[in-house]
Amino acid sequence: MSDMWCVCFDCEGVLVGEAWLELQKKTGLDGLKLTTKDEPDYDKLMMHRIKILRENGVKLEDMKSVVETMEPLEGAVETISWLYPLCPRIIILTDTFQNYAQPLFNKLGQCTVFCHAVQVDDEGYIEKHVLRLKDQKRKSVEALKGLNFNTVAIGDSYNDISMLKAADKGILFRPGEKVLEDFPEFPVVWDHASLRVLLAETMGLPKPTTMNGK
Amino acid sequence: MSDMWCVCFDCEGVLVGEAWLELQKKTGLDGLKLTTKDEPDYDKLMMHRIKILRENGVKLEDMKSVVETMEPLEGAVETISWLYPLCPRIIILTDTFQNYAQPLFNKLGQCTVFCHAVQVDDEGYIEKHVLRLKDQKRKSVEALKGLNFNTVAIGDSYNDISMLKAADKGILFRPGEKVLEDFPEFPVVWDHASLRVLLAETMGLPKPTTMNGK
Repeated sequence: MSDMWCVCFDCEGVLVGEAWLELQKKTGLDGLKLTTKDEPDYDKLMMHRIKILRENGVKLEDMKSVVETMEPLEGAVETISWLYPLCPRIIILTDTFQNYAQPLFNKLGQCTVFCHAVQVDDEGYIEKHVLRLKDQKRKSVEALKGLNFNTVAIGDSYNDISMLKAADKGILFRPGEKVLEDFPEFPVVWDHASLRVLLAETMGLPKPTTMNGK
Repeated sequence: MSDMWCVCFDCEGVLVGEAWLELQKKTGLDGLKLTTKDEPDYDKLMMHRIKILRENGVKLEDMKSVVETMEPLEGAVETISWLYPLCPRIIILTDTFQNYAQPLFNKLGQCTVFCHAVQVDDEGYIEKHVLRLKDQKRKSVEALKGLNFNTVAIGDSYNDISMLKAADKGILFRPGEKVLEDFPEFPVVWDHASLRVLLAETMGLPKPTTMNGK
């Protein structure tokens, strides 16, 4: 049959910046400097963040306001606008939380997003985070393959690797040094213009024309 | 956990009109008046259509030009624009073919579309249609449920019923008289304004404000 592709993007680090990093900058709270690099247990990290927010009176709506000031990464909107008319299956697979990340999703268009949610208490504080499904990135790619799609997945970090491995084609986008060393098997791109070229080659699409702005 | 919904729309009859009907009108070809009502075997129907097109010199690009003149149904774009910021998981599940239906998908935004494809010969004629997956609408809903989503599916016709039954909530949109009689178990809406209200109730979303244009 003629190939039908589904393109799975990680969100933070690939299409947009890091929301927690931005919140740290805007609030100046030292406690929010802790990242997955310092605390590999994501549950623990999130409970730590949630505690810091409550102690400092930062509510979900405040976090959402910060996210509203963020813009997609350079070239991300162009990648999606270029890709969609050629392959109307763009799925964002992210471990972020819809409650505050939605303003960023809106700026990327109407792409489908598989993510998680946080629970908010009566006062408007984040109470806890709820993972919809463990290892959902990998499982989503597997489900898409089960529906007879070819899959390509693009990610930048350790939590993307299982999805990149599950996909027919995995691509690293601007990875950290250690990720790059640990997973030399994946092709690597450093900006969206190069990503579009690689996607076109991978999926047999017409070569993208060079656009202003990467 | 907080519910996370995925909304599955049939395309023709729910979001846009019928492409083959439009082609029949534009070309005046009597042979294209045959529909699923006359020929329940979809494979046979498509081979009949493909034969008529070739006999009359109608190529894929001609069909695409006709589709380009079509507009989404009244209120469809509003439904998607209203829904997306509340639930960024809109998947169009359709048995139509990406090669000529893409102009219509573009007019609906960047929604993910699970569909099929046709194969085109060197002269530009449709050679055959290729079903990516049999009963893909139902199987897609089942896969989404397997990823721990709540699902709601909206369709108008017999080929949507298995998807409506598989979903947590099935909704009939402007169904034919016979479909309505045969499946009294589904709630029915007749326009997009009512669909938005029913979706909001079903998914626990804020009540949609009345908009100009249904």
